[in-house]
Amino acid sequence: MKLTDRQVAHFHTEGYLFLPELFTEEEVAALRSEADAIYAERRPEIWREKSGAPRTAFAAHTYNEAFRLLGAHPRMIEPVQQILGERVYMHQFKINAKSAFTGDVWQWHQDYGTWARDDGMPEPRAMNIAVFLDEVMPINGPLMLVPRSHTAGTLAATHDLETTSYPLWTLDEATVTRLVAEGGIVSPVGKPGGLLMFHGNLVHGSAGNITPYPRKIVYLTLNAVSNYIRRPTRPEFIAHRDFTPIETVPDDCLIHYARAYRAATAQALA
Amino acid sequence: MKLTDRQVAHFHTEGYLFLPELFTEEEVAALRSEADAIYAERRPEIWREKSGAPRTAFAAHTYNEAFRLLGAHPRMIEPVQQILGERVYMHQFKINAKSAFTGDVWQWHQDYGTWARDDGMPEPRAMNIAVFLDEVMPINGPLMLVPRSHTAGTLAATHDLETTSYPLWTLDEATVTRLVAEGGIVSPVGKPGGLLMFHGNLVHGSAGNITPYPRKIVYLTLNAVSNYIRRPTRPEFIAHRDFTPIETVPDDCLIHYARAYRAATAQALA
Repeated sequence: MKLTDRQVAHFHTEGYLFLPELFTEEEVAALRSEADAIYAERRPEIWREKSGAPRTAFAAHTYNEAFRLLGAHPRMIEPVQQILGERVYMHQFKINAKSAFTGDVWQWHQDYGTWARDDGMPEPRAMNIAVFLDEVMPINGPLMLVPRSHTAGTLAATHDLETTSYPLWTLDEATVTRLVAEGGIVSPVGKPGGLLMFHGNLVHGSAGNITPYPRKIVYLTLNAVSNYIRRPTRPEFIAHRDFTPIETVPDDCLIHYARAYRAATAQALA
Repeated sequence: MKLTDRQVAHFHTEGYLFLPELFTEEEVAALRSEADAIYAERRPEIWREKSGAPRTAFAAHTYNEAFRLLGAHPRMIEPVQQILGERVYMHQFKINAKSAFTGDVWQWHQDYGTWARDDGMPEPRAMNIAVFLDEVMPINGPLMLVPRSHTAGTLAATHDLETTSYPLWTLDEATVTRLVAEGGIVSPVGKPGGLLMFHGNLVHGSAGNITPYPRKIVYLTLNAVSNYIRRPTRPEFIAHRDFTPIETVPDDCLIHYARAYRAATAQALA
């Protein structure tokens, strides 16, 4: 898995790169089922909306085999290492639900602001990745990105503890208005299996979801090993302390997992 | 202004009809400026979000000349009379703001449910109309319609006084899920000046707007004269009691108004 020069240039100029249908429906179906099973659990890594609907399951790659395989998948790891120019480790791993009917807003923010302030990450040399588990549509609360905003540096932000159940360093309206006037807004959509990667300083947010279509994504951060976090303040399941470079798994491992998973499910129902 | 047979058939089958760019940018620009001026006023007809941002200005056609002309415009009145088969009067007239950054949700609902319960309207023979004052985009909280749901009759609903600042009879998730499985969701988008008409029993809603792009629409209801409301309980500025058939204005009246408006503004600034 190697990006073209044009893809790499697009990332550096626009601050993001979208790879539609990078994983097959067969691969994603297993991840989707496992995500629903995880959300049904009660554990400290799983955070909920004010409504009680699941919002985020942290660190699923540490307690679920399917997500462990995804977290070390070469189709994801190799392009990111190509762009960052060195090996990477998993800084954060979450499954964001954006549930049908009640999926709540993520206000406009940059992620690197949080990594710097809360985790002591030296530089914005970590990559945000969204892997679509459901179809992402214009109407079910897609990620919205402000192209080229990653060149604005780390912007002043306010710690929002009110709007949603998740504390977030958010940007003010004047700043977002200015950046959108310059770069517009894009919201990549598409079938399950798409992968969106974007710069840690790219401004992004997402509206609520009132449709009957859930919009689960795996939302993870791969950090350059040399850029490991220096002053972590958040729990280990939010900001990982294991800085070992990821060893990729074979490219066909998720397919094999999915087939075994399907066979086991069929047997259980027989 | 006359709809084709195909357009009329589309309305009856799908429950809605979208006429993109029915009004010109020149016509709409004047309406848009006037809407902003109205929102700046303090009067009982103007309702606000919990954030203080404007949500809805009722009955603007009764106290603003530009909106009076729009409310009697032949490009809107004639197609509706063609579909309903008789003359119409203005049952309700609002300018819905869906403000930039803070525009709030309208939960899934049917309008005829409210007209029947709260106003004593005998039959669903009134037409909902949305006229786009700003560009309506997939990302700034467009109206979402469930095609063909108008054939489901008046569905059981709950009076939602909590979710937003506007009390609304809303549908439960199971009902919406079933209707969407059958009909899907459409959200017509486009430039200012588009007109969307839909059946009083068509299920619809809209998500919040966190973008810097406001999404103002005029949202009005034209009722067949014979179907006048029998037991009004809401204020006159919400459910009108003047059942006189609308006399249309000349087709070019808004253009003339817009030109005079622009000339007056230029003079005031000179």
